[in-house]
Amino acid sequence: MSDKGLLFVVSAPAGCGKDTILELMLRKTDSAGYSVSATTRAPREGEIDGVHYRFLTRERFEEMIKEGAVLEYTEYCGNYYGTLRESVDSLLSQGKDAILKIEIEGAMNIKKQFPDCCLVFILPPSMAELERRLRNRGTETEDKIKERLAQARNELEAADNYDYLIVNGELDKAVDDIIAVMRAEKLRRGRNAELVKEIKGED
Amino acid sequence: MSDKGLLFVVSAPAGCGKDTILELMLRKTDSAGYSVSATTRAPREGEIDGVHYRFLTRERFEEMIKEGAVLEYTEYCGNYYGTLRESVDSLLSQGKDAILKIEIEGAMNIKKQFPDCCLVFILPPSMAELERRLRNRGTETEDKIKERLAQARNELEAADNYDYLIVNGELDKAVDDIIAVMRAEKLRRGRNAELVKEIKGED
Repeated sequence: MSDKGLLFVVSAPAGCGKDTILELMLRKTDSAGYSVSATTRAPREGEIDGVHYRFLTRERFEEMIKEGAVLEYTEYCGNYYGTLRESVDSLLSQGKDAILKIEIEGAMNIKKQFPDCCLVFILPPSMAELERRLRNRGTETEDKIKERLAQARNELEAADNYDYLIVNGELDKAVDDIIAVMRAEKLRRGRNAELVKEIKGED
Repeated sequence: MSDKGLLFVVSAPAGCGKDTILELMLRKTDSAGYSVSATTRAPREGEIDGVHYRFLTRERFEEMIKEGAVLEYTEYCGNYYGTLRESVDSLLSQGKDAILKIEIEGAMNIKKQFPDCCLVFILPPSMAELERRLRNRGTETEDKIKERLAQARNELEAADNYDYLIVNGELDKAVDDIIAVMRAEKLRRGRNAELVKEIKGED
């Protein structure tokens, strides 16, 4: 099978448990890693450059956009957030799978530039359960919860553009689902075009 | 996710370990079962109707072909061997995945009648290793081994028509590969067209 890493792009509405699923998945496998995002916002206490984010100046970020070194980016509260091509390439060239956690528009941009990437969408088991989870956080106002639910409804429509849909009903099951997806996706015939030739010794 | 079983069609050249992989896989999961083949040959000692084969008379088999109740069949040494639609349907309707172990031509016929089925091809790690395994069986003449190797080379070309390619280098790995394929395939977006609607409560 192919020894090259694959790029997995994972999106989900807020409250679907995407971060938890990916952290548990990464603990269970050593063949994948996060692609670290870049940002122009100032590091918060304890944040390490290259681990939590690549911290860049605004000038450098804009230069890199012009150079085509930024795969996708967005501006939020006056700061850029984005994915550097080198962060992805560095994982893939080590034979690791690169995991990109990004929102839908960014995911679609990545797909254009990495047509071979695999898009995974994480879904809540139901809107009622999503609402319950958002309320249980206890950190958000009623207005904010309503806004997030409305946004989630919109975002769910984008699931149609993804390759795999994983429902986060039971956390362990969702973690095993994404692990199975990452394993199976590498076995797809289209990703192993040269395999039969290799086996037959016709290299 | 979909509760309906999926049909997995598994093919491999002789000596690739297909039977062993599938038996170990079935021990690890209770959500799949073999679709029992039908034949017109006489039962051998210890063979149970409905377990090893569905034993049918030649007349009944030919009737069923005419009725469209046989998904694929072949004639070998004067006897019919084939797959009955009811054997597959019975597993799928129980929510189980149906596993069909058949050769390439049969697999292509199944695909035409069950376009949703998933085709898995098992490959040897190399022709040299396949030769070693065939010799180690110690049951076949030199001519037969050469014939099987030539046939395997031909059959490998058909891998291009399958959805997944699994190399049986290490047995445990190949078993886990097929388990991952069966799990991931159910999560593919195309197999869950109604999922987003269900989550949004728009049934």
